[in-house]
Amino acid sequence: MAVTASTVAETCLAAKRAAGQLAALPSGAKNAALEATAAALILRTPEILEANARDLEAGREAGLSDALMDRLALDTGRISVIARQVRDIVALPDPVGEVIEGRRLYNGLEVRKVRVPLGVIAVVYEARPNVTIDAAALCLKSGNAVVLRGSSTAAASNAVLAEVAIEAGLSAGLPEGAMALVAGGGHEELAELATQAGAIDLIVPRGGEGLKAALKGVATVPVMYAASGNCHVYVDATASLPDALAITLNAKVQRPSVCNAAETLLVHEAVADEFLPTVLGELAAAGVELRGDARTRAAAESAAAVAPATNEDWATEYHALTLAVGVVGSVAEAIEHINRYGSGHSEAIVTRDTEAARAFQLGVDAACVYVNASTRFTDGGEFGMGAEIGNSTQKLHARGPIGLRELCTFKYLVEGVGQVRA
Amino acid sequence: MAVTASTVAETCLAAKRAAGQLAALPSGAKNAALEATAAALILRTPEILEANARDLEAGREAGLSDALMDRLALDTGRISVIARQVRDIVALPDPVGEVIEGRRLYNGLEVRKVRVPLGVIAVVYEARPNVTIDAAALCLKSGNAVVLRGSSTAAASNAVLAEVAIEAGLSAGLPEGAMALVAGGGHEELAELATQAGAIDLIVPRGGEGLKAALKGVATVPVMYAASGNCHVYVDATASLPDALAITLNAKVQRPSVCNAAETLLVHEAVADEFLPTVLGELAAAGVELRGDARTRAAAESAAAVAPATNEDWATEYHALTLAVGVVGSVAEAIEHINRYGSGHSEAIVTRDTEAARAFQLGVDAACVYVNASTRFTDGGEFGMGAEIGNSTQKLHARGPIGLRELCTFKYLVEGVGQVRA
Repeated sequence: MAVTASTVAETCLAAKRAAGQLAALPSGAKNAALEATAAALILRTPEILEANARDLEAGREAGLSDALMDRLALDTGRISVIARQVRDIVALPDPVGEVIEGRRLYNGLEVRKVRVPLGVIAVVYEARPNVTIDAAALCLKSGNAVVLRGSSTAAASNAVLAEVAIEAGLSAGLPEGAMALVAGGGHEELAELATQAGAIDLIVPRGGEGLKAALKGVATVPVMYAASGNCHVYVDATASLPDALAITLNAKVQRPSVCNAAETLLVHEAVADEFLPTVLGELAAAGVELRGDARTRAAAESAAAVAPATNEDWATEYHALTLAVGVVGSVAEAIEHINRYGSGHSEAIVTRDTEAARAFQLGVDAACVYVNASTRFTDGGEFGMGAEIGNSTQKLHARGPIGLRELCTFKYLVEGVGQVRA
Repeated sequence: MAVTASTVAETCLAAKRAAGQLAALPSGAKNAALEATAAALILRTPEILEANARDLEAGREAGLSDALMDRLALDTGRISVIARQVRDIVALPDPVGEVIEGRRLYNGLEVRKVRVPLGVIAVVYEARPNVTIDAAALCLKSGNAVVLRGSSTAAASNAVLAEVAIEAGLSAGLPEGAMALVAGGGHEELAELATQAGAIDLIVPRGGEGLKAALKGVATVPVMYAASGNCHVYVDATASLPDALAITLNAKVQRPSVCNAAETLLVHEAVADEFLPTVLGELAAAGVELRGDARTRAAAESAAAVAPATNEDWATEYHALTLAVGVVGSVAEAIEHINRYGSGHSEAIVTRDTEAARAFQLGVDAACVYVNASTRFTDGGEFGMGAEIGNSTQKLHARGPIGLRELCTFKYLVEGVGQVRA
């Protein structure tokens, strides 16, 4: 298959050539390619399912866990969701060409800062085959060429999904090389991809810590690390306790496997005795395993079983129904704890005190800082940015949801009538 | 001296502690510290000159070049310029707290994307001692703590300048550790500084390619590379030739040592015979050494001596009165040449054809793309952004002038009344 026949370096150079043409494509042409992709996904569903069945069989033979098998599996419903998400991206505004700011200078020069594509984006991802389409659609809409590298467990599914998208794109007039899938799940290929400086402008890993660590060691091209989230809910002395209860339960229990779920609850000592028995009881009833400091364990009384928390607990993103709980003496102590152990993702205070709210928002060093709301809202869709390719806890370029705009850079366009510098 | 007594790691941790307080300082407090620094520079000029004299003497003994000695030298006039530049930074708007965008979400959550300091910025620089003050002032104004690391040739000057700024800052109420100078010009200290992930948020090197290469090999913290500039002027078939002449001369001759000076002139074949003898004659008269392709050498006739250009010439940033000159057949060929050999800094087209102008601005992949103006305008001051710490040719985070805003990140502040995610 043509998709996988080239070497990594050749694929990246072809993508770079395509990127120049993609950057100049109007929204209509990009949207037409996305529409063609969505239609082809539905039309070619049987072929996709057949490839997926081969991956699933290989996965069963290799003894993949139920969770991994579930992430790998496609069915007609899931494919139609993937197609719908492509159409959702069609509906988003095109970030390319947006004038971020502009002015006329003292000498008459007209300066515009205009959003443009980054160029070539490599997306490296693990089991879920839907990322093949999702990432390709986001990159295309933002005017970037994309080089995809999935995991070997989903090799057959990814190959056919990429083929569907590539063929639909070509039929709608996209340049050759605008999308490509590099085969092979080995670390050597990852290293080759991560060192194509001059051809690849950005690598986005979507996967676990192992993948990120593998990239960190070898990458010479810029990497945007999707975040781990060690998120906190802090219940202040003046909090509305019903709000605090609802927010804590939502942040921990609603979807514990995601990066914006809470991993630690901090409670001001003034409300610890009143709040903790209730919240710990409800958390335990929801199946949450609790680990607390001494004051938490004392306050819990008979409401719930609370194991002793270690320093490691404060630093852990459980990704599961486990919560660390601590009592603090002040909002300053809460901020200090969060800045020490947090991963800079999403942090919430529940308070009715404007001074505490302000101090928390100023003092907490994180992508998203909430007052009286659940950390679970950190999401491109929720923020009105549309689909996202991940969440960044980096401080440079993108922080928080990585949406279409964050897959772009900008350039200054300057127009004159012969001006020279004095 | 306290400034240099701590280890690099201790200095960085102290800066990180200070950064939390700096982020919350209002503009008035930061401006007061900058005013105090400007005043102290004037007041303590004799002390600064005495230290500088020691560096100059050591430089003479070490046989530094005249150019390096000139960059190292301070006098009363230069110190008053440094002080005035600090006051210019006082006059700039504070980037911190600026609301970049904001909206009310469907569920009533109020989201604001607000500019905040990066945290701790390390600035690594070579001979010029004025960078000590310049970098410290830009970092302070943008709410960042700064760790400075100058070169050993300017050790005495840098030490007293840093002491002046640190003492003035402390007297005006800045937190301890907000500014620091780490002594020692060795690569080991550079490596130590560049690996303080968790304490340092960004390193900005201001110096030559050797410094950048040294950092690239070791840095684990983000680095923003100030650019080299292999900039081009392209004279299109329809150009106003008087404008083309003025722009070419300005871009090459006005200040050849800077990164936004032109290194290559490309001329459309339709105007080569008419334009080249004039422009090459004037360039030669201005002392420019010329290297051209075959068609350029033929067109030059007796107007100027033009040596043959090699492929290396197209890729070279001369930083000097040397210019490579080539003839191209179309705007597309010019774009291709520029994207192949350019460094993505500043590129200009001279044309009266709107289609050519548009194709050039769309197709050239560079931070700043000019139509009918000199490349020399790429500068924070010229662009109305105020002082800059350099120019970036990276595509992520900052591209073009690195001013106060580019020394910041942002965070999303979200305010609710108890919202949880459904």
